[in-house]
Amino acid sequence: MTAPAQPVDAFDLVIFGGTGDLAVRKLLPALFHRYVDGQIPDGTRIIGVAREALDDEGYRQQITAGLNGAAAQNPEKFKAFLKLVTYRPLDARKDEGWDEFAKLIGQQPDHVRVFYLSTSPDLFVDICRRLGHYGLNKGESRVVMEKPIGRDLASANRINDDVGSVFNESQTFRIDHYLGKETVQNLLALRFGNALFEPLWNAEHIDHVQITVAETLGVGRRGSYYDNAGALRDMVQNHMLQLLCMVAMEPPSSLSPDAVRDEKLKVLHSLKPINDENAAQLTVRGQYRAGATEGQSVKGYIDELNEDSKNKIEKSQTETFVALKAEIGNWRWAGVPFYLRTGKRLAERVSEIVVAFKPVPHSIFHPSAGPLAQNRLVLRLQPDEGVKLWLTIKHPGPGGLRLRHVPLDMSFAEAFGVQQSDAYERLILDVVRGNPTLFMRRDEVEAAWRWAGPILAAWEDSGESPRPYTAGTWGPSASVALIERDGRTWNEDNEDNNE
Amino acid sequence: MTAPAQPVDAFDLVIFGGTGDLAVRKLLPALFHRYVDGQIPDGTRIIGVAREALDDEGYRQQITAGLNGAAAQNPEKFKAFLKLVTYRPLDARKDEGWDEFAKLIGQQPDHVRVFYLSTSPDLFVDICRRLGHYGLNKGESRVVMEKPIGRDLASANRINDDVGSVFNESQTFRIDHYLGKETVQNLLALRFGNALFEPLWNAEHIDHVQITVAETLGVGRRGSYYDNAGALRDMVQNHMLQLLCMVAMEPPSSLSPDAVRDEKLKVLHSLKPINDENAAQLTVRGQYRAGATEGQSVKGYIDELNEDSKNKIEKSQTETFVALKAEIGNWRWAGVPFYLRTGKRLAERVSEIVVAFKPVPHSIFHPSAGPLAQNRLVLRLQPDEGVKLWLTIKHPGPGGLRLRHVPLDMSFAEAFGVQQSDAYERLILDVVRGNPTLFMRRDEVEAAWRWAGPILAAWEDSGESPRPYTAGTWGPSASVALIERDGRTWNEDNEDNNE
Repeated sequence: MTAPAQPVDAFDLVIFGGTGDLAVRKLLPALFHRYVDGQIPDGTRIIGVAREALDDEGYRQQITAGLNGAAAQNPEKFKAFLKLVTYRPLDARKDEGWDEFAKLIGQQPDHVRVFYLSTSPDLFVDICRRLGHYGLNKGESRVVMEKPIGRDLASANRINDDVGSVFNESQTFRIDHYLGKETVQNLLALRFGNALFEPLWNAEHIDHVQITVAETLGVGRRGSYYDNAGALRDMVQNHMLQLLCMVAMEPPSSLSPDAVRDEKLKVLHSLKPINDENAAQLTVRGQYRAGATEGQSVKGYIDELNEDSKNKIEKSQTETFVALKAEIGNWRWAGVPFYLRTGKRLAERVSEIVVAFKPVPHSIFHPSAGPLAQNRLVLRLQPDEGVKLWLTIKHPGPGGLRLRHVPLDMSFAEAFGVQQSDAYERLILDVVRGNPTLFMRRDEVEAAWRWAGPILAAWEDSGESPRPYTAGTWGPSASVALIERDGRTWNEDNEDNNE
Repeated sequence: MTAPAQPVDAFDLVIFGGTGDLAVRKLLPALFHRYVDGQIPDGTRIIGVAREALDDEGYRQQITAGLNGAAAQNPEKFKAFLKLVTYRPLDARKDEGWDEFAKLIGQQPDHVRVFYLSTSPDLFVDICRRLGHYGLNKGESRVVMEKPIGRDLASANRINDDVGSVFNESQTFRIDHYLGKETVQNLLALRFGNALFEPLWNAEHIDHVQITVAETLGVGRRGSYYDNAGALRDMVQNHMLQLLCMVAMEPPSSLSPDAVRDEKLKVLHSLKPINDENAAQLTVRGQYRAGATEGQSVKGYIDELNEDSKNKIEKSQTETFVALKAEIGNWRWAGVPFYLRTGKRLAERVSEIVVAFKPVPHSIFHPSAGPLAQNRLVLRLQPDEGVKLWLTIKHPGPGGLRLRHVPLDMSFAEAFGVQQSDAYERLILDVVRGNPTLFMRRDEVEAAWRWAGPILAAWEDSGESPRPYTAGTWGPSASVALIERDGRTWNEDNEDNNE
């Protein structure tokens, strides 16, 4: 068997926004799982920070709830884990308590220090200045930023400048948890660990690529944030472009952080612009109306916004769905469309990348053998992770050569009996280790905004509203038309779809 | 689900050599299985012919023994099947009984007639002349020939001329049961039903090909035939060259019989000659000595010969093992060695084709991720049939990007729950249907002998004896040296071999 995961040295992790949803539902469970696996040593300090007046015990109770029973499965480990966790009430905009906080951190000068900014971005600058004031940015200190990093190029630059005035770029980890997913890692292994795929990984052999991030949820309690962002900012500019880069990048010379990020950056720079001239042809926006999802009737977007709003909202121009056709202007990908779609309140929760190969140029088979289907590599990120290759084989058994299209499992997680770990588990340990390969460099964020900005501007200039779609469907019919008019179809990874 | 196998019309099948091993152990069981599956209609006549004085009932008893319990599983079907089977005592060299035989056949003038020559080749001409004499070669009549078709080009031509004077080429089915195997069919589906393999199927991406046909049995009762043949004639000239052709042929324009066989013929014509000049470098002969196989001590080849021989045999120059390195002189395969090895009393019973791809040109992974192994496509024909692709994936789970080499099952027979059918089932029905795609055309047999002849001559000219090897091993060590001096290794399809 392969060697077990290597532990790190004891470290300090400070979570600003420690009582927030992300901290409680994602970060602390991720840390607990790594602790159970022996990767996080005792002596590590996990410090939740927020404005709420809580003591350590109160905080520990909060996070126990977020662990959803995982704690109960391993009560002794959990008891030990909770000893690593403490809480400090702090307000980024008030002096109170910061002296003591700095003293606490200073008690372990040899620890790697990770400051995880899981707060609203408008607090980043205050937090960072205070950390700088106490010299906590020195040495092995790192800062982690969650999206959104800005709502356009200018605001992203402002945040990056603010944080950058205290932490230099090598200390700054812009997290995109999609990059920490098992499947994305496996994409690297498949593309660059085999001689089979890379020779085919280009416009000569690939027909098109699809990236879908579909949610069944609506905006819920995030309405006030979401209405100011929309699907393009919330999903496309960051997660989906990152996935596109992982599919499309040239082979880096190594997996060293800058080798990988240089290649991703080149892809972002090669994206053909979408702007006033072509946005109407290349993009589709939508906004959900009332409908039904998973058997339950649900409200439309505007009604959902009003649930949380003091003032009655009559109308919004914010898209809850976007589909678009991107193209990469380089030799490898010339003429290969990358179809992206994402939205809330869609028919199914699924995130996947589909690499569709060109059909064989000529069939040697008798028509009675059955149709020849396209080879497709389907990289699934949600709800389950996995990689499938759709292949044509002979239908086994007697009775002449009949063809059959079957999905081959290329991820093997089941075969290995391995628990699927959350992306945050991988990424937090990468921060502790100081490995930024799977994090966005500042120039990547900027390049992504440079491409996304003109799309947002084109939509605004058009004066048009997002197209309505019924909750629980696959978005506006214009999204289907976007791909069908090229003679292609959104993927339905249905194992029985050719029978 | 795909449509079930299509039945054929009622037909007549005459098996000359009807009491022989092949008829009893292979042909009649194959026919029974197809009958159970509903492909062979009642009204079909299966007529065993041999010199023994048996009646129908006696013959039916003989073949019941050969069915090894399959009859007991389906006693009603078997009773019905036996009604199709009759027996005629006939001697190819005596007139007696032939008039009645011809009359019997003539009773069903509309039936397709298949004359299966499962006798010694020196009887072929007598049988065929008699069939011609009675006009039984007219209309929808076909003749099936088993190997060996000659022991060199001249004797093959003699047989083909003799049979050809009564049956024309389109009526003549030279059977090579390796071509009827599920895996060989699947090779066609994989190569030409997917856009993934064909672009890689050439010297640029394939490092080498291995074909192994290894038996654990000795020569047994076949000593007198075998000692006059040897491994090259018995296995390489027919089965293994046919497999090589299926791997190496250019895409035919269709699966029509002549399109496929034209492509195979081109491969045979492109084989680089092995002769006096290079046979010592490119071939290894062996002959087994006493040893142990599957836990039992076994005799050497000479001792085995003497068991069945009236005169004491002291020595034999016949090879029971051959390994060789073939090359195909065309653009697709220039510089790609095809390593072939076959033998009796080897360590394991296995027949397989291994297509070894070139390594990736450069590793982007950290050495701690583990070694990068070659991709290999392993087409297994015996003892179980199946296709596996060895691939590098990410080791699932947390703990950094570690690589793992895993075999992907590309045949799916298990998943479909399909009973593996014998190659003869497919091939006999192909004869009835008049589809010669999977049968050797005369020019193929001749081309194969033209390539094999100079190897046999070179061995004889060298005056050297086959190298001894111990029964139960992988043959003479020179066979290992043959491939290892090129920096390559005979395949061991062991799922744990990289751990």
